Amino acid sequence: MLNKNNCFIGCESEYKNASVVIFGAPFDGTTSYRPGTRFASRRMREESYGIETFSPYLNKDLSEIAVCDAGDLELSIGNTAKVLEEIESFAQAIIADGKIPLMIGGEHLVTLGSVRATAKKYANLNVLHFDAHADLRDAFLGEKLSHSTVIRRTHELVGDNKIFQFGIRSGEKEEFLFAKEHTIMNRFDLKEIDYALQVICDNPVYLTIDLDVLDPSEFPGTGTPEAGGVKFVELLEALKKVSKLNIVGCDINELSPPYDPSGISTALACKILRELLLIITK
Amino acid sequence: MLNKNNCFIGCESEYKNASVVIFGAPFDGTTSYRPGTRFASRRMREESYGIETFSPYLNKDLSEIAVCDAGDLELSIGNTAKVLEEIESFAQAIIADGKIPLMIGGEHLVTLGSVRATAKKYANLNVLHFDAHADLRDAFLGEKLSHSTVIRRTHELVGDNKIFQFGIRSGEKEEFLFAKEHTIMNRFDLKEIDYALQVICDNPVYLTIDLDVLDPSEFPGTGTPEAGGVKFVELLEALKKVSKLNIVGCDINELSPPYDPSGISTALACKILRELLLIITK
Amino acid sequence: MLNKNNCFIGCESEYKNASVVIFGAPFDGTTSYRPGTRFASRRMREESYGIETFSPYLNKDLSEIAVCDAGDLELSIGNTAKVLEEIESFAQAIIADGKIPLMIGGEHLVTLGSVRATAKKYANLNVLHFDAHADLRDAFLGEKLSHSTVIRRTHELVGDNKIFQFGIRSGEKEEFLFAKEHTIMNRFDLKEIDYALQVICDNPVYLTIDLDVLDPSEFPGTGTPEAGGVKFVELLEALKKVSKLNIVGCDINELSPPYDPSGISTALACKILRELLLIITK
Amino acid sequence: MLNKNNCFIGCESEYKNASVVIFGAPFDGTTSYRPGTRFASRRMREESYGIETFSPYLNKDLSEIAVCDAGDLELSIGNTAKVLEEIESFAQAIIADGKIPLMIGGEHLVTLGSVRATAKKYANLNVLHFDAHADLRDAFLGEKLSHSTVIRRTHELVGDNKIFQFGIRSGEKEEFLFAKEHTIMNRFDLKEIDYALQVICDNPVYLTIDLDVLDPSEFPGTGTPEAGGVKFVELLEALKKVSKLNIVGCDINELSPPYDPSGISTALACKILRELLLIITK
Amino acid sequence: MLNKNNCFIGCESEYKNASVVIFGAPFDGTTSYRPGTRFASRRMREESYGIETFSPYLNKDLSEIAVCDAGDLELSIGNTAKVLEEIESFAQAIIADGKIPLMIGGEHLVTLGSVRATAKKYANLNVLHFDAHADLRDAFLGEKLSHSTVIRRTHELVGDNKIFQFGIRSGEKEEFLFAKEHTIMNRFDLKEIDYALQVICDNPVYLTIDLDVLDPSEFPGTGTPEAGGVKFVELLEALKKVSKLNIVGCDINELSPPYDPSGISTALACKILRELLLIITK
Amino acid sequence: MLNKNNCFIGCESEYKNASVVIFGAPFDGTTSYRPGTRFASRRMREESYGIETFSPYLNKDLSEIAVCDAGDLELSIGNTAKVLEEIESFAQAIIADGKIPLMIGGEHLVTLGSVRATAKKYANLNVLHFDAHADLRDAFLGEKLSHSTVIRRTHELVGDNKIFQFGIRSGEKEEFLFAKEHTIMNRFDLKEIDYALQVICDNPVYLTIDLDVLDPSEFPGTGTPEAGGVKFVELLEALKKVSKLNIVGCDINELSPPYDPSGISTALACKILRELLLIITK
Repeated sequence: MLNKNNCFIGCESEYKNASVVIFGAPFDGTTSYRPGTRFASRRMREESYGIETFSPYLNKDLSEIAVCDAGDLELSIGNTAKVLEEIESFAQAIIADGKIPLMIGGEHLVTLGSVRATAKKYANLNVLHFDAHADLRDAFLGEKLSHSTVIRRTHELVGDNKIFQFGIRSGEKEEFLFAKEHTIMNRFDLKEIDYALQVICDNPVYLTIDLDVLDPSEFPGTGTPEAGGVKFVELLEALKKVSKLNIVGCDINELSPPYDPSGISTALACKILRELLLIITK
Repeated sequence: MLNKNNCFIGCESEYKNASVVIFGAPFDGTTSYRPGTRFASRRMREESYGIETFSPYLNKDLSEIAVCDAGDLELSIGNTAKVLEEIESFAQAIIADGKIPLMIGGEHLVTLGSVRATAKKYANLNVLHFDAHADLRDAFLGEKLSHSTVIRRTHELVGDNKIFQFGIRSGEKEEFLFAKEHTIMNRFDLKEIDYALQVICDNPVYLTIDLDVLDPSEFPGTGTPEAGGVKFVELLEALKKVSKLNIVGCDINELSPPYDPSGISTALACKILRELLLIITK
Repeated sequence: MLNKNNCFIGCESEYKNASVVIFGAPFDGTTSYRPGTRFASRRMREESYGIETFSPYLNKDLSEIAVCDAGDLELSIGNTAKVLEEIESFAQAIIADGKIPLMIGGEHLVTLGSVRATAKKYANLNVLHFDAHADLRDAFLGEKLSHSTVIRRTHELVGDNKIFQFGIRSGEKEEFLFAKEHTIMNRFDLKEIDYALQVICDNPVYLTIDLDVLDPSEFPGTGTPEAGGVKFVELLEALKKVSKLNIVGCDINELSPPYDPSGISTALACKILRELLLIITK
Repeated sequence: MLNKNNCFIGCESEYKNASVVIFGAPFDGTTSYRPGTRFASRRMREESYGIETFSPYLNKDLSEIAVCDAGDLELSIGNTAKVLEEIESFAQAIIADGKIPLMIGGEHLVTLGSVRATAKKYANLNVLHFDAHADLRDAFLGEKLSHSTVIRRTHELVGDNKIFQFGIRSGEKEEFLFAKEHTIMNRFDLKEIDYALQVICDNPVYLTIDLDVLDPSEFPGTGTPEAGGVKFVELLEALKKVSKLNIVGCDINELSPPYDPSGISTALACKILRELLLIITK
Repeated sequence: MLNKNNCFIGCESEYKNASVVIFGAPFDGTTSYRPGTRFASRRMREESYGIETFSPYLNKDLSEIAVCDAGDLELSIGNTAKVLEEIESFAQAIIADGKIPLMIGGEHLVTLGSVRATAKKYANLNVLHFDAHADLRDAFLGEKLSHSTVIRRTHELVGDNKIFQFGIRSGEKEEFLFAKEHTIMNRFDLKEIDYALQVICDNPVYLTIDLDVLDPSEFPGTGTPEAGGVKFVELLEALKKVSKLNIVGCDINELSPPYDPSGISTALACKILRELLLIITK
Repeated sequence: MLNKNNCFIGCESEYKNASVVIFGAPFDGTTSYRPGTRFASRRMREESYGIETFSPYLNKDLSEIAVCDAGDLELSIGNTAKVLEEIESFAQAIIADGKIPLMIGGEHLVTLGSVRATAKKYANLNVLHFDAHADLRDAFLGEKLSHSTVIRRTHELVGDNKIFQFGIRSGEKEEFLFAKEHTIMNRFDLKEIDYALQVICDNPVYLTIDLDVLDPSEFPGTGTPEAGGVKFVELLEALKKVSKLNIVGCDINELSPPYDPSGISTALACKILRELLLIITK
């Protein structure tokens, strides 16, 4: 009779039984502009009870898979380097146990912690990157660790032509020039997803979804909304295809509930998470 | 010189002269999650003065038809069964006078009151149902009367294959299974509307529009927004076709003004109501 | 390292060890005007981590007492009578185990469920009632069970001159006339609290705090704010005195988070709850 | 059964029977900073159903007096001079019929229209002015007609030492110097109200209440909130005394609903209006 | 080290070096319904630091062109006619210096001031008008100068068949009839833009973009949102084509930040402004 | 005619002529709960045009003194230690030039940078601290540099019995115990201010005002509102007395505009800043 749920809907498996482990990384310490992504994981858990466990898109139900929601990391707020270590350490433990970590940001920099853990384990790691922003700066406000540099730092870990970027529509000129040399960047849309899948093939893949890849009309609740984005149904189509890949780690990030007064962004993020779980779990 | 309008714009005919009668059913008592639809009818009247009486889509003006805005029902808040009786009784009187009732919800359960009145009068009643949700549960939180069960209860009144559902993209697995047996359900879109019109033919039709059938980007102001919905122009195209049908009762519901901080949802609902009035009035 | 808290801060004792049991009653089904109190208990738990467990007012810490947060009741939304039974039943179990139930509303009607449980157990029950509203109507919108009638219904259970009302500044003329005959009503302020304590003496007391007794400047987040209320420090002073009484049940209610955009009302409610816990626990 | 109310609660008398006539002047065209007072009268009517018709402060009910709510003026938005003429003309008609006009602003400039009508009829007119701001500039942004100049313009109509200002805590140095010569200004509080009443005696009085005289904690919903204001109960005490005066016209103004997210300002304004009606009606 | 920016991002050229001069006209005095466009220019400057100076659509950077941001006009708020003169006078000076004025409204009426300045200088002026509303009324609330009449007034300056209207989906029947005789109106979309370019050819063009031409899902932050609008990418495509024209003056207007709680409308407006600057500057 | 103000109202002196230098430190990187203070300085500049330069409390005008608004520091967001160095360095330069630095936070930790600069220059530095929170933790979430530890760090710089704390009403039990040994703490109110002034005498004083010392009813816009605070007029009275002291540095902090939907907190902060400037400038 009592409701004490504090897990994402349908993700109540115990850790030992789970094939996927959800955890939150509520950090937005390098956000230069509009903070708030720290509230994303908690709000998503709450609002997840507004969606169903059944996906009419995939004809599959969360009850058919085993997911553990491990809660939120308690991070050393104010100490960026240490925060990344804490994330890396937690993700590493999940990977070591043969499970897939699915992190909920937080700002996009949190991805670096999780990618570090994944890259340590898997040689030849590919990265599938959905985003409105290139995130390829070398430094931002003098800092190497920033939401604007996260893919540049990731490139240092995985090397040239291993990062496939989709939906990019904002960046400095230098970032677009860098991309020409070092990543596979697709501007504006997701049309070339099939090509990426073909190239990646059976190699291990880290999937990072900055939700601001979506159009701000569908996903207003983010720190730096960029007009001209992709649609939920387009993202969903792309993710369905991704199910063929060997996903070894993933995250969704940059939901900022304070900029989502109607709640449509959080609701959409919950749905993406549900679909993602159903897709990456065999 | 004084402005004392409290009718929806252009709906100032007297009851006796009107062919359509608008009334509000400001009830959201079974809403399990985010309440607020009780404010819809009142807010729509206010905001209706932000739109024009002329439709450039139909080249027709509200001044050309006779609509009475009867105001809001004073409902027995807290007593769900009685509320439905009050709605039924009011709709029945309108129908008895040879007019079409157009109810503004309120949560979707209010439809049941109006459908009961309509089904009593018309044998062979068909129901045209636009919605993001199947609303086919048998019970919700132990209750038979709920916004989540309203179409299931409606099915008990009109029988198999009389309910045509469009835009459905959320529900329990059981609801989708029920639909396969008992209703004509179209997932995600409105593409099969022509088929429905063909089947229904000249039979009397009750039209219920849960506005959350629309995409949350266009219509954020609702209790349970579901990404991946239909567009305003798509809904409008479908409604234009509906004008061929014999509409004997209708409603729009689930606008929740508290979740519509920019007002775009209320403005859109007002426009749908204008078009609906111009469409159902011969 | 993981934060999975879903208890009110400092209330993590197990049921069997606790002397006070907190539970939420997220119901606002008879709220005629602005709903939202259903979100109060959940929001209070979340926001409770913004306050400290230590009270500088009482020089006492929540760590010194044993409180169990049992979570929220899953209520039969839409069925008012059944909801009250569910509350009564849960409160009764707590009382039977020799513990004090501390319910977080919800609208004020939820008090009736808890008072029924308490009155069954304790003869000669007194009620201490802090509120802006008299809540003494016999019916509201035709219904006997309403937030506006809850103290009238309570009077039917405990009889004349057992209900001590404080801070009352709104009601129909009839309610004030009823109060003259049947309750001890103090308009506007809490000044006569000492008199009440003296009369009540060692008798068992149910304490119900409708938080709208506070001034809307300090507590804007409520459905029906009434200017001219009491201050937090005044309420705190009164509650300190109440510690002498034999409190056998209590509740706080009518926090409505949707009307609390800055969060000051929720933060204040958390503090009142902390102080209340420290006061009623010997 | 139908609720078609569009009058302020308890103000449903017909014009011919009423001793007081309420009307709205929804104009904020000279507001230099944060507009929104145009929405005040409409919002107050709606929200007035959240208060009671009975005043426990005065032990009097709106049902005991005869007030007509004439609705809102349709003003020539964009043409300030004409707007004032339209207000003057309407107020003049009410006065000519032996009734008291009670105008709901709008910005404070609307007072000028009503004061002009009153000053035409009554020689020796006194003005009782509650406000945070002196409003004594000669011009603002080059314009003579402005919310910042309204009392200066009023002074031109009624002459020296006829305007009693209370609660003033903001203005240019020049305005305070002007006040020393030409008005009776009381800074910060209402303490000298008795002196004003004594001086005014039986002379006709126009009462204008800029609601920002109240402290922003109690009344945040206004364009230019000024910390350090008076309390609702203090204003109420002052108004009770005013009942001895010969009030021949009055207004309340500067409620700006868009800056009142919790609704406490509108609710307070409704209560002030209720008390004002009960006070000025013999 | 200190940030004292108060220019739109990348628009820091001195006036004498600039080929385009941005200025704000923060006026919304005839807005009959929901004011707030007065805040647009200031908010856009602030939020412009959330976008990049580089356009991936045009592969061009604001650093490659010379734009001066002259700040906001200090307008005679409350005096509509004078406000228009102030705008005209400022735009005239820019034009006289051989530069292109780019005005940021305010409400749409501000366009009239700027068009007057342009029409004085250029014979055979054409007007390219993107809008949801026809703005062709002869008067509104009795006033000739209104946001609803601005294109009618413009027609009086430039004559028949010189105004090309796009995206129009709201107006009185009379406005649509007027358009048939006197303007080239395209309902609902931008499809016929090529035809317009062909007709206009090398003639001087004033470009006025009422941002409510966009769909409210992408651009909710405006006073009168009209469902069924064009998409950002569609508008961008049209603007790219416009680069062939001889633009001699332009403006964007009707962004209303108070109705843009998530900030997506302001962010989009900033992007449109960036693209516009890159397009009109050779 | 153009408005390009980006200084706090009345603070337009050049640096070389100024006796006080305002600067913003828009940092909230250690805020564990609700961020947003980074927006304070910018918002205060904007909103400062809503107040007057004249203080009726002090009968003094900002035009009578020489204040330079140096703008906002561009801080190394994400690197807490470096941020503090940047602040220290800037404050040090101001002090070296014989001027008083007046910093606008940001979160309370920014005070540490400014206090370091001041303590370097002045032996025997006293600190006057207005706050709701003790801020005396040794570490928070494992970090030594935190908004919760700032006064503890300050104590390490200035030693025992040099810090006078006022208005404190929240903290861990350990913080209150620490205070007993090492600081002069006044709980809840400002009553003992005269004693502090007497002890401090002519010694140099750093004044730090955490605006959450104010009651949340008057100042809701802060990250951690604490009921039971002091009033604006009480704080003002205390500050007037402070004018006797030898203030060598000061700051106000913890205004969080995102939690101030009505704007009353920002308006109040602007007024406090105005009064403070008039008080500390001889």
